[in-house]
Amino acid sequence: MTDIDLLMMNRCIQLAKQAEGKTSPNPLVGAVIVKNGEIVGEGYHPQAGLPHAEVYALKQAGERAKNATVYVNLEPCNHYGKTPPCTEALIGAGVKRVVVGMIDPDERVSGRGIKRLAESGIEVKIGVAEDACLRLNEAFIHRVKTGLPFGVFKYAMTLDGKIATDTGHSQWITGKSARHFVHELRSISSAVIIGGNTLRRDNPLLTTHGLTSHNPLRVVITASFDLPTSAQLWQQDTAKTVVFTTPQPDSSLKDSLLSQGVEIVEIANLNTTMVMENLAKRGCNSVLWECGGNLAKDAIASGNIQKIYCFIAPKIIGGKGLFSPIGDMKIDNMNNALALKNTSIRQIDADFLIEGYLNFN
Amino acid sequence: MTDIDLLMMNRCIQLAKQAEGKTSPNPLVGAVIVKNGEIVGEGYHPQAGLPHAEVYALKQAGERAKNATVYVNLEPCNHYGKTPPCTEALIGAGVKRVVVGMIDPDERVSGRGIKRLAESGIEVKIGVAEDACLRLNEAFIHRVKTGLPFGVFKYAMTLDGKIATDTGHSQWITGKSARHFVHELRSISSAVIIGGNTLRRDNPLLTTHGLTSHNPLRVVITASFDLPTSAQLWQQDTAKTVVFTTPQPDSSLKDSLLSQGVEIVEIANLNTTMVMENLAKRGCNSVLWECGGNLAKDAIASGNIQKIYCFIAPKIIGGKGLFSPIGDMKIDNMNNALALKNTSIRQIDADFLIEGYLNFN
Repeated sequence: MTDIDLLMMNRCIQLAKQAEGKTSPNPLVGAVIVKNGEIVGEGYHPQAGLPHAEVYALKQAGERAKNATVYVNLEPCNHYGKTPPCTEALIGAGVKRVVVGMIDPDERVSGRGIKRLAESGIEVKIGVAEDACLRLNEAFIHRVKTGLPFGVFKYAMTLDGKIATDTGHSQWITGKSARHFVHELRSISSAVIIGGNTLRRDNPLLTTHGLTSHNPLRVVITASFDLPTSAQLWQQDTAKTVVFTTPQPDSSLKDSLLSQGVEIVEIANLNTTMVMENLAKRGCNSVLWECGGNLAKDAIASGNIQKIYCFIAPKIIGGKGLFSPIGDMKIDNMNNALALKNTSIRQIDADFLIEGYLNFN
Repeated sequence: MTDIDLLMMNRCIQLAKQAEGKTSPNPLVGAVIVKNGEIVGEGYHPQAGLPHAEVYALKQAGERAKNATVYVNLEPCNHYGKTPPCTEALIGAGVKRVVVGMIDPDERVSGRGIKRLAESGIEVKIGVAEDACLRLNEAFIHRVKTGLPFGVFKYAMTLDGKIATDTGHSQWITGKSARHFVHELRSISSAVIIGGNTLRRDNPLLTTHGLTSHNPLRVVITASFDLPTSAQLWQQDTAKTVVFTTPQPDSSLKDSLLSQGVEIVEIANLNTTMVMENLAKRGCNSVLWECGGNLAKDAIASGNIQKIYCFIAPKIIGGKGLFSPIGDMKIDNMNNALALKNTSIRQIDADFLIEGYLNFN
């Protein structure tokens, strides 16, 4: 049965991914119900507040759920949240066997759902395609375990390591397909962060450009509050924007931003962790850092970046290296470099993309 | 017959590669003789001054060469050089058919060998696996067409585009396997070039580290002649070293270098093209630039680099970007970046290697 278990768990992951970017603060979960070798029910959790994956799958299966096997990539919940516990729904439907990809990462409830199912006489199997299940919910797991969102740093550089010419010109380094991939990254992120420099220099939009209905919360971190009164980010039609800054006196700039609907959060001794804490409270599982080298350096040094997407364009500009992806981290010896784990590479049209993890949890 | 022709031409290339790095200023050539569907002779050109590939293959075939088909990746020569013309040897052996990968790139003799063979009644086919044949001898072809060696620039950088920490520490960026690959690159290069900065900072050996019997000529370019009296490069046991510098007065440093067997070439208004011209005269087909950003910038701007090997280590050091792969080329707009063509990527243990061409000839 192992091959079928694996196959069905991969189907759960596939189902779960249909809601990528839309479930925060909840995880991505898919469920499949199999009876006599046939799929009789499927479902996934579409967004927080709506039913869990198991509920949709059970509804589709109806009476056929009796004595069936249920596959789900995350341990079914055993507590009352916005919805009743899935364990009771599974027991009530009379299922025979439950196959779970991974147990709940929240130590306060971890294992309870499985225990409840087993005690009611249901056969439970744990850990099928566990690595893939862990990867699917890496952002959710990180937030549950640390209390902070999963940080993803994305940057694009030339083959000689520059993110802009020495005059600051950077549009565009990579081609259309790589930029489209960034829109996809935004579509699965809860928030996107840039700094004041990037805002002033690039005046970016930071949306998915219509790729999906979900757009990330757009975040600007600026200690100086030196911002333009007019910017693409201040238009709130497609996505909301929050500015994190230090305590500011009243000013026409502040009035202008507020009147345009921009939220301003003032924090003394502002740092990247305070911003991430605030975003966690807003229910953000994953945050995409699209900032320049200085802010990236702060975020990495503070442990607020877990994953890196480095786009490399096969072109050369030379220069004094005024704009490099990551600023001064006071590393003087190459042996003290921060190593990436679980790296992979792919070609996206003419460009290359290297992915990896700084702190693999 | 097309598939067999292709197969045999690839075998020629395979044979030719056995002498990689050893044939300069001559090309890499392999030859195969087929009679009644059977290989009856094989050969390759081992080094300048020794017989051509066809001669070895004919010798092995003996009488069986009569009415046979001869495969060779480069047009057989029709002139007396250090060895007699191969066309006469082929005609003398009574071969029936000659399949040629590419015609001679030297416009003064190009097509003459084929003409001579055809006029003697031999059936000649041209252009089998031509792209692979062109690639095999890209260095030789470039030198024949331009009079200058084919320039290859190799560098290793971190995932954030640095070739050293801001204090200049750079050993090591990549892992053992990637460094072994560099030794392989040296083994197929006629010469290796560094600048004074790299010599002073890294004190490199620049040999193949025993990988093959061939070691490249080691070249230092230094306008300042600010060099140490003791350096690994001054030891001439395994490879010779030449220092290119500006006209220098007599000095104890000069005496010391000369007494250690180092050749010193003094050129007024020294530049990278003058060095490449000098190396062409020494019979260098390909030159590997292993220099820092400033010299690389000069070499690229002067058109002395055709191919780039960029090693990328999946690690991050941050920094002010004091050491970047390529110095200031006065490119202010990203749209004016120098694009690489025919790029490819591979993983070498933990590291990545991107290859590409700046000016594909």
